[in-house]
Amino acid sequence: MPYEFDKLHEECGVFGILDSKGENVANTIYYGLCALQHRGQESAGIAVCNTEGPLGNLLCHKNMGLVNEIFSPDILSELTGNIGIGHVRYSTTGESTIKNAQPIAINYFKGTLALVHNGNITNMEELKNSLQENGAIFHSTTDSEIITYQIALERTKTNSIEEAVYETTRKIKGGFALIIMSPQKMIGVRDPYGLKPLCLGKKNGSYILASESCALNAVGAEFVRDILPGEIITIQKNDIKNNYALCNQTHTHCIFEYIYFARLDSTIDGINIYDARVHAGEALAKSYPVEADLVVGVPDSGIAAAMGYAKQSHIPYGIAFQKNSYVGRTFIKPTQNERETAVQIKLNVIPSTVKEKRIILIDDSIVRGTTISKLIIMLKKAGAKEVHVRISSPPFLYPCYYGTDVPSNHLLIASKHTNEEICEQIGADSLGYLNIDDFKVMVGNLPLCKACFDQQYPVI
Amino acid sequence: MPYEFDKLHEECGVFGILDSKGENVANTIYYGLCALQHRGQESAGIAVCNTEGPLGNLLCHKNMGLVNEIFSPDILSELTGNIGIGHVRYSTTGESTIKNAQPIAINYFKGTLALVHNGNITNMEELKNSLQENGAIFHSTTDSEIITYQIALERTKTNSIEEAVYETTRKIKGGFALIIMSPQKMIGVRDPYGLKPLCLGKKNGSYILASESCALNAVGAEFVRDILPGEIITIQKNDIKNNYALCNQTHTHCIFEYIYFARLDSTIDGINIYDARVHAGEALAKSYPVEADLVVGVPDSGIAAAMGYAKQSHIPYGIAFQKNSYVGRTFIKPTQNERETAVQIKLNVIPSTVKEKRIILIDDSIVRGTTISKLIIMLKKAGAKEVHVRISSPPFLYPCYYGTDVPSNHLLIASKHTNEEICEQIGADSLGYLNIDDFKVMVGNLPLCKACFDQQYPVI
Amino acid sequence: MPYEFDKLHEECGVFGILDSKGENVANTIYYGLCALQHRGQESAGIAVCNTEGPLGNLLCHKNMGLVNEIFSPDILSELTGNIGIGHVRYSTTGESTIKNAQPIAINYFKGTLALVHNGNITNMEELKNSLQENGAIFHSTTDSEIITYQIALERTKTNSIEEAVYETTRKIKGGFALIIMSPQKMIGVRDPYGLKPLCLGKKNGSYILASESCALNAVGAEFVRDILPGEIITIQKNDIKNNYALCNQTHTHCIFEYIYFARLDSTIDGINIYDARVHAGEALAKSYPVEADLVVGVPDSGIAAAMGYAKQSHIPYGIAFQKNSYVGRTFIKPTQNERETAVQIKLNVIPSTVKEKRIILIDDSIVRGTTISKLIIMLKKAGAKEVHVRISSPPFLYPCYYGTDVPSNHLLIASKHTNEEICEQIGADSLGYLNIDDFKVMVGNLPLCKACFDQQYPVI
Amino acid sequence: MPYEFDKLHEECGVFGILDSKGENVANTIYYGLCALQHRGQESAGIAVCNTEGPLGNLLCHKNMGLVNEIFSPDILSELTGNIGIGHVRYSTTGESTIKNAQPIAINYFKGTLALVHNGNITNMEELKNSLQENGAIFHSTTDSEIITYQIALERTKTNSIEEAVYETTRKIKGGFALIIMSPQKMIGVRDPYGLKPLCLGKKNGSYILASESCALNAVGAEFVRDILPGEIITIQKNDIKNNYALCNQTHTHCIFEYIYFARLDSTIDGINIYDARVHAGEALAKSYPVEADLVVGVPDSGIAAAMGYAKQSHIPYGIAFQKNSYVGRTFIKPTQNERETAVQIKLNVIPSTVKEKRIILIDDSIVRGTTISKLIIMLKKAGAKEVHVRISSPPFLYPCYYGTDVPSNHLLIASKHTNEEICEQIGADSLGYLNIDDFKVMVGNLPLCKACFDQQYPVI
Repeated sequence: MPYEFDKLHEECGVFGILDSKGENVANTIYYGLCALQHRGQESAGIAVCNTEGPLGNLLCHKNMGLVNEIFSPDILSELTGNIGIGHVRYSTTGESTIKNAQPIAINYFKGTLALVHNGNITNMEELKNSLQENGAIFHSTTDSEIITYQIALERTKTNSIEEAVYETTRKIKGGFALIIMSPQKMIGVRDPYGLKPLCLGKKNGSYILASESCALNAVGAEFVRDILPGEIITIQKNDIKNNYALCNQTHTHCIFEYIYFARLDSTIDGINIYDARVHAGEALAKSYPVEADLVVGVPDSGIAAAMGYAKQSHIPYGIAFQKNSYVGRTFIKPTQNERETAVQIKLNVIPSTVKEKRIILIDDSIVRGTTISKLIIMLKKAGAKEVHVRISSPPFLYPCYYGTDVPSNHLLIASKHTNEEICEQIGADSLGYLNIDDFKVMVGNLPLCKACFDQQYPVI
Repeated sequence: MPYEFDKLHEECGVFGILDSKGENVANTIYYGLCALQHRGQESAGIAVCNTEGPLGNLLCHKNMGLVNEIFSPDILSELTGNIGIGHVRYSTTGESTIKNAQPIAINYFKGTLALVHNGNITNMEELKNSLQENGAIFHSTTDSEIITYQIALERTKTNSIEEAVYETTRKIKGGFALIIMSPQKMIGVRDPYGLKPLCLGKKNGSYILASESCALNAVGAEFVRDILPGEIITIQKNDIKNNYALCNQTHTHCIFEYIYFARLDSTIDGINIYDARVHAGEALAKSYPVEADLVVGVPDSGIAAAMGYAKQSHIPYGIAFQKNSYVGRTFIKPTQNERETAVQIKLNVIPSTVKEKRIILIDDSIVRGTTISKLIIMLKKAGAKEVHVRISSPPFLYPCYYGTDVPSNHLLIASKHTNEEICEQIGADSLGYLNIDDFKVMVGNLPLCKACFDQQYPVI
Repeated sequence: MPYEFDKLHEECGVFGILDSKGENVANTIYYGLCALQHRGQESAGIAVCNTEGPLGNLLCHKNMGLVNEIFSPDILSELTGNIGIGHVRYSTTGESTIKNAQPIAINYFKGTLALVHNGNITNMEELKNSLQENGAIFHSTTDSEIITYQIALERTKTNSIEEAVYETTRKIKGGFALIIMSPQKMIGVRDPYGLKPLCLGKKNGSYILASESCALNAVGAEFVRDILPGEIITIQKNDIKNNYALCNQTHTHCIFEYIYFARLDSTIDGINIYDARVHAGEALAKSYPVEADLVVGVPDSGIAAAMGYAKQSHIPYGIAFQKNSYVGRTFIKPTQNERETAVQIKLNVIPSTVKEKRIILIDDSIVRGTTISKLIIMLKKAGAKEVHVRISSPPFLYPCYYGTDVPSNHLLIASKHTNEEICEQIGADSLGYLNIDDFKVMVGNLPLCKACFDQQYPVI
Repeated sequence: MPYEFDKLHEECGVFGILDSKGENVANTIYYGLCALQHRGQESAGIAVCNTEGPLGNLLCHKNMGLVNEIFSPDILSELTGNIGIGHVRYSTTGESTIKNAQPIAINYFKGTLALVHNGNITNMEELKNSLQENGAIFHSTTDSEIITYQIALERTKTNSIEEAVYETTRKIKGGFALIIMSPQKMIGVRDPYGLKPLCLGKKNGSYILASESCALNAVGAEFVRDILPGEIITIQKNDIKNNYALCNQTHTHCIFEYIYFARLDSTIDGINIYDARVHAGEALAKSYPVEADLVVGVPDSGIAAAMGYAKQSHIPYGIAFQKNSYVGRTFIKPTQNERETAVQIKLNVIPSTVKEKRIILIDDSIVRGTTISKLIIMLKKAGAKEVHVRISSPPFLYPCYYGTDVPSNHLLIASKHTNEEICEQIGADSLGYLNIDDFKVMVGNLPLCKACFDQQYPVI
C-alpha cells in the first residue's frame, strides 16, 4: 500500500487461548488476530489442539494475506480444538513466502509442538549452527523455527515442556514474545528486557495471551496483567504456573510501540498508547511552538499527537486529509507519467480546512521522507500558507536488531541530513522533532529501549 | 460490513472524461472511481470509446465488487479509448446482480451508446410501459436501462444525440445525474431540482464530469464548476455546448449529501462538506448543550460534527474509538453465542479516553438504532459515566424516492418512537437531534430537499 | 488447446426441458449440457422459470468457461424452476465475451422470454436493420439476440408466443435449431432444411429437447424422435402442439455432424454417428487401398474411421497415440525454442506400436494441416517406415454460412494446394480423401448440405 | 472423479533434470510432470537450484491440484536454475494436505537439499523413531521427509552427498524411486528389488531422470536406459557416477505398472506397456474364450487388452463407450434420486455398436466392482444380449506395502466372494480373470512382485 510503505514495520502479532471448558477456540483466535492485524499484513495462521485428544492431534492452517482473506467459515470449522495459537506476520518482500508463515508446527519424539513468535533473536546464527551440527534440518529461514527446534532439543534433556522452554529462553538473546503450544499446555514467554509486549487476559473459563490488550477487548476478554519481562507462564486446564527465574531489573521496553506500532486502544506495561501519543504532541508543542491557525495529523499515525499539540498550544485541531479506506492491496499504482500520485489516491486534502491557513502538520516519524513531502505539496496546492512539520519522535538513525523492519541506512533521511536540510528537502516551513528527553512525558519512568535514536542497544 | 449496515446508502457515483489529445482515459476513470467508491461498493464498471475510431467502437467492462478488485492492469490496458465513463453502484441485496451493473452499453440504429446514472426516476413504470408497448426489450431491472432506451427512441426523432438527451430529460422525473457517451460526445445531465450532484473539472486537454469534486482532486484535475440543475452539457473534442432550457429556479439539493453521503473533501454546490458538518455540530451544541468532559464522534460519520460540537461547547474533543480498517467484506461475523459483536471487531473503545468521563457521542443519523446502542454499551463498559448522544440530523422518518436506499418504515426507529423512547432504548443519558431549522447553519441559503425529515417531496 | 485448434468448430449445443410434475430442472440441464460440451467450450448458461410462478419469474446464470466450471451446487440450487433451457457455445477469439453468452433472457411487454440458438442466420443484417429502424436496442453482437427481438416484435401482432415464433421462423434464413422458453411453454424450432439437429426425448413426466441424442442418454431420458426440418413444437404442461407449416421436402442435413461434430454415441436423423464414421473408413479403404502393417486413428476424431478402414482392408487396427487428458485450458504452450511441441504434450506416440511399421493414419479432416504434419513427424521419429494419410472427408474448400466456424480461406490448406502438394507438405507417403460420392455410404440416402466441399449452398 | 474412484492408485511420479549448459529447467520439468500426471493428481511441485549459484540457493513451489493448474508462466519464470526436480502425488483424502506435497526442500548444515519420492518405506516407523530420538523434528507425515532427514543425518558422517544417499539407501526398506538434488548434483536411486520404475534420458546437454519413458518423449529427450534396481546414479555437470553396491540379483518389478499404472507409450525395464496389455488380452482370449460378436474395452484402462483379445479371438473389436473428457474435478455428482449416474455422465454407451450383440467387455481389474456393474447395466439397457467380462489381471486380494493405495480389505470384492459370486453380483454373463501364470505372456521372464495377487511380499 502506497503510503504505508514509508513507515517502519513491526514484524508480528501473537495470540493464544486455552479454554478449560473444552470449547473450540479457532473463532476467538480469528477475532483476536483481526484486532492484531496492524502488526503484520503479509501472512497469518492458526494452530489448534484438543487437550483431551489423542497424542499428536494438531491442526494448522496458514497462508499469505489478511486474516479475513485466509480464513473462511469452512476452514475455521475444521480447526477444532480447545487450545490454540495464532499469528500475523509482516516481512520485507524478499522473505515473503508461505514457508516462513507461522505458527511453526512440528512432530518430534514427544509428540507435537507449535510456536508463534514476535521479535528477533540476535544470536540466531550461533544457535542455528549449533543445531545444524547436531543434525537439525530447517524448512524455513526464520529464527522462529530455530527457537522451536531448540525447545525440542531441550525437551530431550528435561522433564517437561516448560523446562525445555526455560532452557531455551536462557540461551536465546534479543527481543521476543513467544507462545508455545503443546497439546495440553500453552506457554507464554517474554524476553528479559521486555522489548516485546505480551499480556494475559481471561474470559469465562479461558485464559488468553496476546501481543496487545486491544485483542483482549476485541474478543470480549478482561485484561489481567502484562507478562513480566523474563517471565515464563504455563497455562494448563486447571492450573497456571509462573517461572520468574529469568526476570531481572533491567527492563528496556520498545519505545516504538508507543510511538507507532501499537493500536491506540491498547495499554502496554501500564501505559495507554493513546495517552502516550497525546502527551508526545503536548511535549512537541512546548519544545517547538509556532504561530499557526490549525493543527492537523497525518492519518492515522499522527492524529493522537496532533490532538495533544492542539490542546497544549490552544491552536484549533482540524482534519486536513480524507483517507480512502477502499483502496486495498490490489490497487494499481499510478505510473510516473500519470499526474495522480498513489499518496493522493489514498489521502486527499480537504481544501476548505487548510485554505489560507498556517498549518502545523504532525506525524509520528519520518523514514524516507517521501510521503511527508508529497503531503506538504498537496497542502500548499490546496492553499495552505505555511506548513510546519512536527514529528512525535526523534530523528530515526540506527537499525533495530529486535524485530523492527528498517530500511537500509542510506534510505533513512535523518542519517544523511541535518534537520535544516530535511526541512528544506521536504518543503516544510519549519521542522521540529520530539526531544529524546521528552519520552518521559510519554511514558513516565518506564525504562525504554530507544536504540534506534541513541544507538544504546540493551542486548546484542 | 457490520456497522455500515446500519446506515442509509447512496445509490451510485458517476465519472466521465473526454481527452481531446487522444490519450487513453481508462486509468484516470479508475482513479476517479476509487475516489467515489464511498458512493457504492457493490459493482463498478468502465466503458470507453475512441472519438476517432470506426463506427461502433465501444469497450465495456463491469463486475461485482470494489473498483480495485474488478480492474487489473491487464483489463485497464485493454480498455483503449480517449472518451469514457465509469460507475460505482450500491444496491440492496435482492437486486444485487451483474446484469444491473453499469455502464449500460447498447448498439442501436445510430451506433453505440453508453450511460451511467446516479439517482432514481419516479415515473419509471410509465416510461417502461410506454417503451414496452413500442416493442422495447429490457435485459435488466434498472431505471438506467429505461433512460438509455428512451434516449435511443428519441434519437429516431431528432438530429443529434444531445437533442435526444434533451427530449428524454424533459420526460423523466425524479433525481438524477447522468453521463451519456456517444462515440464522439460526452453529455452530462443534472435533474432540474439539482437533487443529485454533478460537477465539471479539467486537466490538460481533458474535460471531466464527476459526482463529487473529490474525484477531480484524486485525478489531479481542477474544479471548474457545478453543473446547474436542469443543465445539459455536451462535451466534444473541440467544443462545449450547454442547454439550459430545463433549468428553472426551484432547486432542492439533497441534504443527505451534506449530512452523510459525500466525502469530507468534496464541495457540492458551493458548500464544503467538511464545513457543513462542523457547523451542524456547532448548531447541536447550541441547541442541546450538556455538561460533559469529552466530545467524541462515531468513526467516520460523526467525526466532523463532533469537532464542531467541541469547538462550540469548549468541551475537549477526543478519540473514543479505534477503527479496524483491515476488516473487509469477507469478514466472518460472530454468531449470537459468541460474546464478541461485529461492531466491536470493527470499532473498539480506547478505554483511557473515556474512563470516568461524561461523554458526548456524536453521529450523523440514527436509522435502526442497533449500532449506536452497542457503542453506548461499549463506552459504559469501558468506564464512561454518562453518554449523551447528539445526532447531526433530524429524526429520519420518510422514504426517499430519489435514489437513497432506505429500510422499510417499520425498521426506522424514529418512525415508531418518541425521542424519549429512543433515548431509553439505545441506553443514552440524553439525546438531541439537529433541529430542521439548523440546516441553514450547515448550508446557508442553499435550497434543500429534506423530504426524508418533513415529507415535502419536490417531485413525484 | 493446442491440437483442437486445427479443427473446424461447431458453434453451439442447446438443451431444454419442461417437467410437468413441477420438479426443478436445473440439475438435469447441467448434466445435459455436460454431454453437449463437445459442441462448444467457450461459455455456457442456464435459464429457468416456474410454470406456476408469478409473471416475470425467470432466473438465468451464464459465464465463460466449461459447464462444470461455471455451475456450482450453490448456483444450481438457486436456479429453481420446472422449465428451463441451456446452452454451450464456441466462438472465435474476437467475439469471445460474456455479453454474447446464451441463453438470451429478456423482459418485454408480454413478460419474460429466453432463447438458446445453435446455428447462423444468413439474413441477419437485413433483420437487424429493420429492427433497429423500429428502435430496437441491442446489447450483444449475436444473431440470437436478433431472433429474440424479432419474436418479441411478432408477439405484438399475434395471439400467442408460438405464433410469434412461427412468424419469426418464416422470416429468418439459414441453419438453426432454437429453443424458446416463455414461462409456461417450451418451443423448439428446426430450420426448414434441417441443417442443424434437434431431437425430442422424454423421461417420467418431462419432455426434453436437445441438439444430440447423447444428451438424452446422459440424463436417463428416452429418445422419442428427431424434430422435423421446419417443425415448430410447442410443449406445455399437459400438451404438445406441432406446427408443420414450414416443413417442405427439400432437406439438406449438415454432413459435418456425421464427419466430426456430433458425438459417437448420438443418432441424428436416423443415422448412427459411430456407424457413419466406420462406414466412411470402409469407403476410404476401398477407394484408397495401400499395403501397410497398421491402421491408426488420430484421437479422438479419427478413431472410428480408422476402425472401419482396418475392418475393410483386413490390416490390423492399432493405437498409435497416447492422449494426455490432464492437459487443460490453462496449459502453458511451449515456446518456439523449446523442442517440445504442444501437440507432443497432448498426444504422444506409442513407439512399440509403430516401430518398423507401415502406418495408415486416419483423421476426419485437414484444415490448416499443421497438426497432421506434426503427427507424421512424430510417427516417423518413432520408427514408422511409411505414413499413409487417409481423410474421412473430401478436401475442405468453402466457407460455411450456417454456423460452423471456418478459418479464412487462405488458411485452408486445400484451397491453395493440390492433393499432391498437400501430401508433400505434410510429409505423408500418400494421401487419400473420401470421395464426395461416398457420403451415401456414410448416411445412405439422407439429403445433405455439403457446401463446404462442393459450394452448393441450399440457402443464402 | 466418479469412475476413476473405483481404481487402484499409484502414489507418485518423479522427474529430475540437470542442464550442463546452465539453462533454466523449470519449463522442461513442467512438461515432464504433465506427462506423468496420470501417476498422481492431488498435488505437484518443482524445486530448482543453480549449480553455479551461491550456497543455499534453492527455489521451490508446490500446491494442491494438477500441474497445469499450479504453475503459471509467472511462477515458472521465477523458478530459475539449471538443476531441478519435480513431483506429482496422489493420496487418499485423509492425508491430502499441502504439507505432504513434494519436493521436500530443507536447509541443513551442508546447505540445501531437495528430494522427490515415489514409493513406500516399510521400516518407516523404526527410522522415524530413531531419528526422533536423535532430536529430529518433522513437519509432515510422509516417509519422504524421513528419508530426507536420514540423508541429512548420514551426511554428517560421510564425505559427500552421494555417500550419504548410499548409507540411507542401505537402511531403508520397501519400494522406492528417489531423486535427490543438492545444489551441484542430481542423484537417482531405485530400490534393490526394482519395485518402482526410474529411467535415464538425455537431451542436448541435459540428463534427465523420470518415472516413465513417456516423460522423456514428452520433453523431446532420448531414452538412455532404465536405472538398475539398487543403483545410485550421481549426475553432475561434467560427470556421471554409478554406485552398484546395493544391486543384487533378486528383482521383483511391480506387475501393476504393466497392468494399469504406467502410460501406454512408456517402456519400463524393457517391456512396452502397450504390448504387455495387448498380450494380456491375448492370453485372456486363450484361457477364457466365449462365443460373442464384439470385444470392447472400458476406456481407457481396458482398451489395449481388448484389442489383444479381439486379435486372438478373431472377434471384431469395437468402441462401446463414448468418454466425456470435459467432466473435470469440479463436476457435481448426481444425487441418489436423480436417475443419472456419475458413471453415465463420464461414459456413455454407443447404442448402435452394442445393440443385439453379445459383448466381451474387458477391463484391467475389479476393485470394488461398482463401476463394472454400472457399465453392464448400461450395455444391457442399450440392447446388448450378453455381456462377458474379462479382466486382464488376476483377482486383487492383498494389500500393497510399496506405495499403491488400496482400499481396505472388506471393500475388495474379490476378497469376500468367489468368481461365480462376483459374476452374479456385477450382472455379467460370464467372468474370466487373467491367470497368474499368464504374466509371463505379458512381460516374459521379467521377475515380478505380484504380492497383491499371491501374498508373496519380496520385502517387509
